[in-house]
Amino acid sequence: MRIALGLQYDGTPYSGWQSQLNQDTVQDRVEKAITAFVGIAGKPPIRVITAGRTDTGVHALGQVVHFDVDVVREDWSWVRGVNAFLPESIVVNWAKPVPSEFSARYCAYERTYVYALHASSCRSPMTASRAGFLILPANRWFDVDAMKQASECLIGEHDFTSFRSSECQSKTPIKTLYSIEIVSSEPWLYFRIKGNAFLHHMVRNLVGSFLQIGLGKHDSSWMAEVLRAKDRSIAAPTFSPAGLYLAQISYPEQFEIPAPWLQNSWLPRGLL
Amino acid sequence: MRIALGLQYDGTPYSGWQSQLNQDTVQDRVEKAITAFVGIAGKPPIRVITAGRTDTGVHALGQVVHFDVDVVREDWSWVRGVNAFLPESIVVNWAKPVPSEFSARYCAYERTYVYALHASSCRSPMTASRAGFLILPANRWFDVDAMKQASECLIGEHDFTSFRSSECQSKTPIKTLYSIEIVSSEPWLYFRIKGNAFLHHMVRNLVGSFLQIGLGKHDSSWMAEVLRAKDRSIAAPTFSPAGLYLAQISYPEQFEIPAPWLQNSWLPRGLL
Repeated sequence: MRIALGLQYDGTPYSGWQSQLNQDTVQDRVEKAITAFVGIAGKPPIRVITAGRTDTGVHALGQVVHFDVDVVREDWSWVRGVNAFLPESIVVNWAKPVPSEFSARYCAYERTYVYALHASSCRSPMTASRAGFLILPANRWFDVDAMKQASECLIGEHDFTSFRSSECQSKTPIKTLYSIEIVSSEPWLYFRIKGNAFLHHMVRNLVGSFLQIGLGKHDSSWMAEVLRAKDRSIAAPTFSPAGLYLAQISYPEQFEIPAPWLQNSWLPRGLL
Repeated sequence: MRIALGLQYDGTPYSGWQSQLNQDTVQDRVEKAITAFVGIAGKPPIRVITAGRTDTGVHALGQVVHFDVDVVREDWSWVRGVNAFLPESIVVNWAKPVPSEFSARYCAYERTYVYALHASSCRSPMTASRAGFLILPANRWFDVDAMKQASECLIGEHDFTSFRSSECQSKTPIKTLYSIEIVSSEPWLYFRIKGNAFLHHMVRNLVGSFLQIGLGKHDSSWMAEVLRAKDRSIAAPTFSPAGLYLAQISYPEQFEIPAPWLQNSWLPRGLL
């Protein structure tokens, strides 16, 4: 039987999603919790497949995973039971049986990331590690119109090599972005980016480049230049992971995958 | 010269505000940072007086302290300099010289606390330790009108013995509440309580009692009964510190104390 789970996590204490030797990762914690709940002594541990492998320090509000198991439990029992073995920083929001042709990874047709930036003359203890931070004098703010203009050239299918980390394992640098929304609410700036898939560090590299335009270091046409150059050294440095949230994974309707529990985060409702 | 500072902190890692033997407290961190910045080797460390001593795990968005020092620095220099010696979980938002008759403690005429509660069938990793949490099935919510009705009997000068911790050091259980606002935005419930001063655990005991009314365990007239009883054993248990924020301290206008930087928190704007 194949089970899908909806997960949220605070990525701060973990070395990202993916299991790695001698590192504490979200995948390890989730697999251990499911295995402990299933409780089949002597059997191999449960392995899960994820929709999106998040980096060190990156959070998830709507992560989706699936796994195969030969025990039967009620949906609510999977939720409560696995949560009982998870730390405070990871939670299962929902669980449901899915057909064997469902894959959390391969059936996903759209991924939504949100980036939350706090820009102020003082950092905020309440959002440390939960939002990106940029020191900005009290009387300054971003040129939001210039950033919105710059976003237009990115929509559609493009070669995103300029925004790709050298460690990226994707087969191709060609991805499709469906939308980029930029919401300004001083001292907060939010980006919501939807695409079919993302390269390693792509959202954080895009955010870094948007901010250079927003701060007037480059004008809005610079984004198209960077994209065309297909050269990582031209775009801005990778921005902090603290503000990045994997917000939603979209699947074909036939699988009836529940919506993410976005209202459980502190992000503003208008955005989600 | 007397200097006032505006502070914010995430109370999670600390044993409250007040210095205690062998405990890590916010007061110790702030005094150490100021002393380090002032840098007078061999002189006694700087001691600060606070407007409100917060408990273990309680946060502050608008804490105010003062201290006396014989070195002169620009206001911005106090902010940047002290922040350089503070951990990520504590920040100075503003600094200004004040007359010697100013006391962060004794000149304060009003204190505002905010309590943020997350009520859902699943906890949220993103607000763990930053909001109180109550498990509530998906189809249930609080009777907010009943809680609002219950709040009316508390406004004004009363003996709040029923909501007072046995460890309270206040000279009198008689305090004055100016207002109680209850804001419902599922799955969030916020309380904003203003008073001249508060007893130990008073806000958390009030919140616990409000929730019993909101959940229908008692009707709205119960709050007046509890108040009249002057008996701590009748009110609800003390609710979690995680959702409690010291939001604002008010001083006479003549001191020109800056407003707290509430916009730097994640709390909804309508509330603050």
